[in-house]
Amino acid sequence: MLYIALLHYPVYNKEGKVVTTAIANMDIHDISRLARTYGLPGYYVINPVPAQRDLAWEIIDHWRQGYGATYNKSRKEAFELVKIKASLDEVKEEIAKQCGHTPKTIVTSANLKEGCITFDALNIMLKSNNLPYLLIFGTGSGIADEVIKNADYRLEPIKGDGKYNHLAVRSAVAIVLDRVLKI
Amino acid sequence: MLYIALLHYPVYNKEGKVVTTAIANMDIHDISRLARTYGLPGYYVINPVPAQRDLAWEIIDHWRQGYGATYNKSRKEAFELVKIKASLDEVKEEIAKQCGHTPKTIVTSANLKEGCITFDALNIMLKSNNLPYLLIFGTGSGIADEVIKNADYRLEPIKGDGKYNHLAVRSAVAIVLDRVLKI
Repeated sequence: MLYIALLHYPVYNKEGKVVTTAIANMDIHDISRLARTYGLPGYYVINPVPAQRDLAWEIIDHWRQGYGATYNKSRKEAFELVKIKASLDEVKEEIAKQCGHTPKTIVTSANLKEGCITFDALNIMLKSNNLPYLLIFGTGSGIADEVIKNADYRLEPIKGDGKYNHLAVRSAVAIVLDRVLKI
Repeated sequence: MLYIALLHYPVYNKEGKVVTTAIANMDIHDISRLARTYGLPGYYVINPVPAQRDLAWEIIDHWRQGYGATYNKSRKEAFELVKIKASLDEVKEEIAKQCGHTPKTIVTSANLKEGCITFDALNIMLKSNNLPYLLIFGTGSGIADEVIKNADYRLEPIKGDGKYNHLAVRSAVAIVLDRVLKI
């Protein structure tokens, strides 16, 4: 069972400093629709700043219960999968309560080089049991070292045609879900 | 040789009427980065409204030559692939001039049912010759019938886990390029 999370802290900025990034409206829209298409049980947006979480909830409420829910029913359906949390620990606790098991965490990054599992290996792992897994995507210039070190698994990066590895996180989530879930 | 185009006219709105959609900033960013990652020779944004094209060129200039070009070099590299055109015919003419052959057109849509080529078939076709192909993605609620009827090929749709088929065009481009180019 695969959950996904979009991490806004701790992540790196362009100068390599650990920062909190802002929640982008389009990340909620595009990734919730992906989560719905690929049949995921939940999509978590993680941000420690209360004002950021409040703003994200306002957007979500518009599409779940406000005018957006009647204007666009398919968007409502997708938004029902989104939850906003303050920390990765909160997400793990919620999944553990739902499933009876703490999820195994899997980090993704364009820069991972060693000790990675392949897309195919993750596909097989997901099919082999009914345990929860949490696939974590970063924002800014990527997930901070402490999160990578504490993760249970690292997923192999998407390699482009050349050396260019600067996909939008929205694109990376689309490609990774398609390669891992093979629907 | 695969070019891609994002069509803003003629496309359908939610009521099934043929309309012109607006160019979304994020469509330029995300899809140009995808085009660069997958080694495509060009990404065309098609819109018949001059004010829309002017605005898109302003955004592109910022990242190609303005402050954006020094702030983020990887974005500059991606934006060099983007061209804004008024019509599909203009795009086909430009590719024909560059390549010596008019491109074969391939339409994509979540609703195509009959007469589609598979992702694998397109992969093999692209590898088997050096001719230009133009893969067309729609905006709004999809490409208008006249464009679908006049296309040389139709590409099979992305099928989700269930009946939900409402991906963002940005997500659809990511998944289709990954399935077709298999890098």
